[in-house]
Amino acid sequence: MAVLFHCEGWPEDAWLAQFARQAPDLDVRPSGDAGDPEEIEYAFVWKPSSGLLERFANLKLIISAGAGVDHLLSLPALPDVPVSRVVDADLTTRMGEYIAQQALMHLRRQQDFSAFQARREWRGDITPPTARQVSAGIMGLGELGRKAARTLRLLGFDVAGWSRTPRTLDGVRCFSGEDQLGAFLGRTDILACLLPLTEMTRGILNLDLFKRLKRGGALGGPVLINAGRGGLQRDADILAALESGLLKAASLDVFETEPLPHDSPLWAHPDVIITPHVAAVSSPEAVTAYALRQIRRVENGQEAENLVRRARGY
Amino acid sequence: MAVLFHCEGWPEDAWLAQFARQAPDLDVRPSGDAGDPEEIEYAFVWKPSSGLLERFANLKLIISAGAGVDHLLSLPALPDVPVSRVVDADLTTRMGEYIAQQALMHLRRQQDFSAFQARREWRGDITPPTARQVSAGIMGLGELGRKAARTLRLLGFDVAGWSRTPRTLDGVRCFSGEDQLGAFLGRTDILACLLPLTEMTRGILNLDLFKRLKRGGALGGPVLINAGRGGLQRDADILAALESGLLKAASLDVFETEPLPHDSPLWAHPDVIITPHVAAVSSPEAVTAYALRQIRRVENGQEAENLVRRARGY
Repeated sequence: MAVLFHCEGWPEDAWLAQFARQAPDLDVRPSGDAGDPEEIEYAFVWKPSSGLLERFANLKLIISAGAGVDHLLSLPALPDVPVSRVVDADLTTRMGEYIAQQALMHLRRQQDFSAFQARREWRGDITPPTARQVSAGIMGLGELGRKAARTLRLLGFDVAGWSRTPRTLDGVRCFSGEDQLGAFLGRTDILACLLPLTEMTRGILNLDLFKRLKRGGALGGPVLINAGRGGLQRDADILAALESGLLKAASLDVFETEPLPHDSPLWAHPDVIITPHVAAVSSPEAVTAYALRQIRRVENGQEAENLVRRARGY
Repeated sequence: MAVLFHCEGWPEDAWLAQFARQAPDLDVRPSGDAGDPEEIEYAFVWKPSSGLLERFANLKLIISAGAGVDHLLSLPALPDVPVSRVVDADLTTRMGEYIAQQALMHLRRQQDFSAFQARREWRGDITPPTARQVSAGIMGLGELGRKAARTLRLLGFDVAGWSRTPRTLDGVRCFSGEDQLGAFLGRTDILACLLPLTEMTRGILNLDLFKRLKRGGALGGPVLINAGRGGLQRDADILAALESGLLKAASLDVFETEPLPHDSPLWAHPDVIITPHVAAVSSPEAVTAYALRQIRRVENGQEAENLVRRARGY
């Protein structure tokens, strides 16, 4: 039995060393040196190239090294074996911190105060609103969305959530499905998107959606935070919405193309806060431990955790 | 019976209108038109000029329109009547939001990411730490300090507090007095100061104190947040500490001189986040309601709330 390691763009040596530290006896092989394909029973992957996984006829489990699985489900011929996606408490915590930070920066008009500071302008006449005057809306109520909702609620925001299928969450007004999307958007000052990327959600953050957000409000207009996937948004629509005033501001951690191209006008827009896909990074320790636990479970005849349901896309 | 209104720099008409709305029958007089001084039994004041309050022989209560009372206790001849200082849940909430915002910005290396954004530089290799790796220390555990401590704890920071006299606070390691100041500072990555300004605390945020803060740590060095009073800090020492690396960064809402002079080097320092004394602003509604409640209590023979103890200075 052996484990295939193939994570596009990740530092391979450091990760193999991490596996070796936590499971010295496990045979983990990089995809460039996979040996006999018959021996590979587990695959730990991120953005595998098309055709790679089909080479391993005895695969029992594919482990997606990140929470998103669009990189797998978009493959033309993904082998028909269970897929487990990493759910990592550490990653979830970091996402809560990122969403809280961005929401508070918009609440407290940090971009304005930064501009005043740059001009050495003392504007003590400006009173930022307080959280309970502001409605935050979380799109996507999986692990990450629920954590974001709970964190914003602890900070005093008026929080609602929207998901594809109905959910309940303590102290959070929950909306679901296409029918209730309008009501959800119409009450939202700060929209934080943590949806999975599926064929249904691709490009959902577009002009049509921005038009349905609450107008005015304590922030002077709606704010977008996207820390899900770049494919959820239309970069050009975000720019157009900022220009026309449909959006007041945006915090973007993800983009249609990453790294964000050097000539993107988003970089220099005064109302856009850009971070380079760092909202929630997994620690190698935690992710490796998760993968090893799933392999152990399957070896012991149990089901792996957090299995992907392919029909719904996550 | 009449009430004197004298709040230096506040929009008088708007405040008198607020009093008139909430208490139409109350005789509230601006200091410029105070009428018979014998009739003034209550004074609602902010930074009254020296000599003003002594004119009213029948004063029963002075209400400080803000939480700080250094503007009163520094008067050479403050009449010997009770002083009540505003404690306003709304103000406390806003302070919690400000401290949370600033702490999260430093945690998530926002200043670095802003600089990268300005240079269109994609630095996806940087992983900000998570809150539980960071020790926050609150100096001053009054209403505001306790709220800040609770909020940072909810966000996952490792929180300690320091106060003049011993305090206990759930989930917060409490230190007190000069003896324990070193131990408190030596464990602190983010120091948030919400002390009252007294003769004991004036200038406490100086080079000697910065030298005692924890070195290194998950943020790469200690961070100062001062949202108390400008008199607590030495502006020049903060600059020197930033230059020498004794401080990694600072968020300052208050300054020795306000407005911060145009030529202060703090404005342009890349590691300083400046806000113009807006961390916690009282809403006129809430403050007026507080003042009216105190007047009603005294008229009914009760003691006013939140009385200042002059000997300790707050």
